[in-house]
Amino acid sequence: MKTYCIIMAGGVGSRFWPASTQKKPKQFLDILGTGETLLQATYRRFKNVCDTNAFMVVTNIEYKNLVLEQLPELSENQILCEPFMRNTAPCIAYAAYKIASQTNEANLIVTPADHLITKETVFNSIVEKALTHTSTYNHLLTLGIKPSRPDTGYGYIEFTNDGNEFQKVMQFREKPDLHTARQFVSSGNFVWNSGMFFWSLASVLDAFEEHLPEINTLFKAGLKQYNTQNEKQFIEDAYQQCPNISIDYGIMEKASNVYTINADIGWSDLGTWGSVYTHLEVNPYKNAIGEQSVVLENTSNSLIRLPKGKAAIIEGLDGYIIVDSGEALLIIRKSEEQRIKQLREKLGKKFGDKLI
Amino acid sequence: MKTYCIIMAGGVGSRFWPASTQKKPKQFLDILGTGETLLQATYRRFKNVCDTNAFMVVTNIEYKNLVLEQLPELSENQILCEPFMRNTAPCIAYAAYKIASQTNEANLIVTPADHLITKETVFNSIVEKALTHTSTYNHLLTLGIKPSRPDTGYGYIEFTNDGNEFQKVMQFREKPDLHTARQFVSSGNFVWNSGMFFWSLASVLDAFEEHLPEINTLFKAGLKQYNTQNEKQFIEDAYQQCPNISIDYGIMEKASNVYTINADIGWSDLGTWGSVYTHLEVNPYKNAIGEQSVVLENTSNSLIRLPKGKAAIIEGLDGYIIVDSGEALLIIRKSEEQRIKQLREKLGKKFGDKLI
Repeated sequence: MKTYCIIMAGGVGSRFWPASTQKKPKQFLDILGTGETLLQATYRRFKNVCDTNAFMVVTNIEYKNLVLEQLPELSENQILCEPFMRNTAPCIAYAAYKIASQTNEANLIVTPADHLITKETVFNSIVEKALTHTSTYNHLLTLGIKPSRPDTGYGYIEFTNDGNEFQKVMQFREKPDLHTARQFVSSGNFVWNSGMFFWSLASVLDAFEEHLPEINTLFKAGLKQYNTQNEKQFIEDAYQQCPNISIDYGIMEKASNVYTINADIGWSDLGTWGSVYTHLEVNPYKNAIGEQSVVLENTSNSLIRLPKGKAAIIEGLDGYIIVDSGEALLIIRKSEEQRIKQLREKLGKKFGDKLI
Repeated sequence: MKTYCIIMAGGVGSRFWPASTQKKPKQFLDILGTGETLLQATYRRFKNVCDTNAFMVVTNIEYKNLVLEQLPELSENQILCEPFMRNTAPCIAYAAYKIASQTNEANLIVTPADHLITKETVFNSIVEKALTHTSTYNHLLTLGIKPSRPDTGYGYIEFTNDGNEFQKVMQFREKPDLHTARQFVSSGNFVWNSGMFFWSLASVLDAFEEHLPEINTLFKAGLKQYNTQNEKQFIEDAYQQCPNISIDYGIMEKASNVYTINADIGWSDLGTWGSVYTHLEVNPYKNAIGEQSVVLENTSNSLIRLPKGKAAIIEGLDGYIIVDSGEALLIIRKSEEQRIKQLREKLGKKFGDKLI
């Protein structure tokens, strides 16, 4: 059974403004300074289990050229262009039916484009086990992350905890409050929802048919259009009629054949500058400045990112995020970083969308 | 008697980094956002008392083209190029002897290029009175500023306070401590030293001869070289041999014919970002942001300056100076702004002079 990898790369990354902009969102950035963008790292991680021609990157049509630039091995037909965002369920239905138009039997991986995985050896063995499992069982498999703290920003998955490697999922719980998150973590029966899924083509199409029949019908109708010159027009029409719904809400929380394989893979969704900061090298004053030409004075616990070659003197800041993209500047306390999204919208409304 | 205006424009403006750089110091910047640079404003203020051909701008040879760009009415021969900085006495001696090579009788104004004067009508009448006075009396006249606060960053001048408009100067006192500055201000016998001088050509040459004979001899020797193709080489040699000394220390503090005319002309030497801030319009939270595309949150008492068209979100700063020049970024508490000069040097030493 051939393995396909569906990379979901349509996000806007507004919490990473001004590094991430509408023109070039987070997944297309080397946000950790590793030398590869998050999309490139995601692609690389699956290259050992997928042929080059078995990757599909679903993204907004605006980002098609960015994907082709960053993953030059892929052909245009492997970039699935959404005319607008409709959340993860339509994105996965589109990719699954496009694969179905080419083959009857396949094993699928679905992954966000913008996450971090530091323990790649552990991760690789999990992926292999997961694919072996889904090639045999009609299971919708999620990759669960053993929680290291009661994070209130993540989704949680409760599983049966019966000692098996593949555990039956009991419930999904989006972003709990701190008290609940603490209970989840201490119970030992909860993992974080990584948003990474494994399933056979047959299993996921069955699930769409059962739980999201409207979306299923919409994208099944394209079986003869995919990989032809009609595909673009077909998708534009389909997305017009398509509800906005996540795969978690539409299928995973409802299906009875959902299982999880749990691991510590050094995972982060890199959801905020603060979470990026925890993965960067810091100096003795806990400032993440890398190799930049920066003089700091009375400054600590801060993340500083400047355009290449730019110099800075920064005095008197403790616990700040300072990001200069060249076109825009952000200075905000780390403790207030959840406000970046809202302040970014305010900036766009006040001075024009081009700035965000 | 023809009036000449000597504009001293050789400063480096290191306390205004990164807006002011070695390549383009403060006097060549529109630091207040008025539409003219400080040099242009200085030139404009004296245009009603000086012919265009009676201006001389003394500056470092590196800035010759900047002066010609900003004051296109001037000819190259009016830009007096210093090969390196030797403080104000050599600068004034050079200009005075260059004028002496063209004429025997002249009234001179000497002014820094980078100060602010907001009450121009008062200023104009003071200038006229001063010039009338120096065309008659062999006095070295300074423009004294009535002090509005016990500023410890300025030089003070004590005068006899005998009720005359032109008052005899008793002593010069550089940057006193706060206690002393308070005594000066409350005594009513002290004014700030504006660094603006009026004197006849004969008076200032006599003063050089008496108090700075070495410098006098050096520049007098050039009388036949000025305004010829030999001038440049002559000045290079003269500056090599020339001591570094200010006009205040070398002449004004020693001569017995020093007088002051005092006024409130809305003067500032614009010596620091903090002093610039006090002259800018502020919003209700006392932020000086002008017309820039900036969203502020929990931010007050701050000066924010960005490159044209740049956007910013700034959160959680009170009393900061934030200056982005495009090539470099400064963030510092206003209370610490006297450290800019030293931090700038540190940056240059650590990462290269090009950055400062």
